[in-house]
Amino acid sequence: MSKARSLKVNGQEVAGGKVPLICTPVVGRTRPAVLEETAAVLAKRPDLLEWRVDFFEGLGRTGEVVDLARALRKAAGKVPIVFTRRSPREGGEANPVGEDEVIELYGAVCESRAVDFVDYELGNPAEKVRKVREASSRHGVGAILSFHDFKGTPPLEALFEKFSDAERAGADVAKVAAMPKGVEDVLTLLAATHRAHRELTVPLISMSMGPYGSVSRMVGVLFGSAVSFAVGKAASAPGQMAIEDLRTVLAIVERALGDAWRS
Amino acid sequence: MSKARSLKVNGQEVAGGKVPLICTPVVGRTRPAVLEETAAVLAKRPDLLEWRVDFFEGLGRTGEVVDLARALRKAAGKVPIVFTRRSPREGGEANPVGEDEVIELYGAVCESRAVDFVDYELGNPAEKVRKVREASSRHGVGAILSFHDFKGTPPLEALFEKFSDAERAGADVAKVAAMPKGVEDVLTLLAATHRAHRELTVPLISMSMGPYGSVSRMVGVLFGSAVSFAVGKAASAPGQMAIEDLRTVLAIVERALGDAWRS
Repeated sequence: MSKARSLKVNGQEVAGGKVPLICTPVVGRTRPAVLEETAAVLAKRPDLLEWRVDFFEGLGRTGEVVDLARALRKAAGKVPIVFTRRSPREGGEANPVGEDEVIELYGAVCESRAVDFVDYELGNPAEKVRKVREASSRHGVGAILSFHDFKGTPPLEALFEKFSDAERAGADVAKVAAMPKGVEDVLTLLAATHRAHRELTVPLISMSMGPYGSVSRMVGVLFGSAVSFAVGKAASAPGQMAIEDLRTVLAIVERALGDAWRS
Repeated sequence: MSKARSLKVNGQEVAGGKVPLICTPVVGRTRPAVLEETAAVLAKRPDLLEWRVDFFEGLGRTGEVVDLARALRKAAGKVPIVFTRRSPREGGEANPVGEDEVIELYGAVCESRAVDFVDYELGNPAEKVRKVREASSRHGVGAILSFHDFKGTPPLEALFEKFSDAERAGADVAKVAAMPKGVEDVLTLLAATHRAHRELTVPLISMSMGPYGSVSRMVGVLFGSAVSFAVGKAASAPGQMAIEDLRTVLAIVERALGDAWRS
């Protein structure tokens, strides 16, 4: 085993290279709700904050989104922010914004440098992925390229290819999430993560979703996943547990791994 | 998923059918040490107590062992006791007692009815396994038939065969423990457990050992393992964590599984 690869922001390791990082989503619909939720979530000391902008009713108004991103930046201090518009196709909220507008929004948010990472889906046309990669690179923002399957868990080889596609597309972080139909699918997701950890160089985030998958959120670090998502105030995906529970389990996992982990 | 099969003592489910049960080993070398350790361990409220008699210096003296088993019975009250002579070949303490003497000892201990289960290794000749099975059946004691590999993790098919062998030999509980060489081996052990859970009817105990394997002790129940071993006072195998830590993690796992678990 080698330690899961840590995330970096402008060449600096997040939280001193700690893995796994705990990332907590913010899913408010209005500006006041987002700000209030952010304050509540930050009080629980996550390592990362993910603003799920697909929940935000102002998604179509770029200026409003950038303003709010700046407010989150101020509130979050040194806690890195991930900016994510999850598409309905991959588990996000329905919204009336076209993909070209989303690309423009990502460009504007990167330019503002209010966020540290953007998450964009690999399922989009390569040309659009390239645009997001370019805009983020230009402004020193990290790109998480992601794949989500809310209906099932593809075979190990297909999951591995998603990590691999992300690396090829220039991702700073490759993220794969899948829904298990049975508990074997949780093992498949972990095995694919471990293969990507061995064969690729990009830092990884992975999780099996839903109740069965929750255990992957607890032990995924052992297989190479650098981030685990947990609920601060409201969940953004099925199977996320409370940040307090996740922190407790991760401390016990770290203690149990002991030197095997640190070596 | 269906719930891991619970253990029974004389037709009654242990701890009301709770899974996973937490089993804590007792590894003292002398009678006073065993009694003192038992008291300390019981204070931590395990669901099962395993007396690892291979650690006991009186192992060769049947009367002494039976007397001490009776004292443990008195001390343990309603907490079921597992009586285990682990062989050096499968990770036990070196001792000068031959296998025929061990069979006699198992017979005497079953006859005393001081214990609820005996654990005997499948690696022994079929004739000896049969003798232990017969003696335990005669006196209403459960038989855990077990396989341990401290050097590595056999392939999934071979691990499944061990569970299957135990069922065929009439086990009340089939136990398989293996040492992972890499983290993939932890997944193999869990996958084999799940296959046995689907295809067999015997209750199962399984664990991947060592630091990596410790995570299987936390999540194994999801794959069909009914018991997890934890340290009360001293470990009996590598990767066991403190009972307090295990209990904390299992409560969080149960909460995360929610209805998926109880259904």
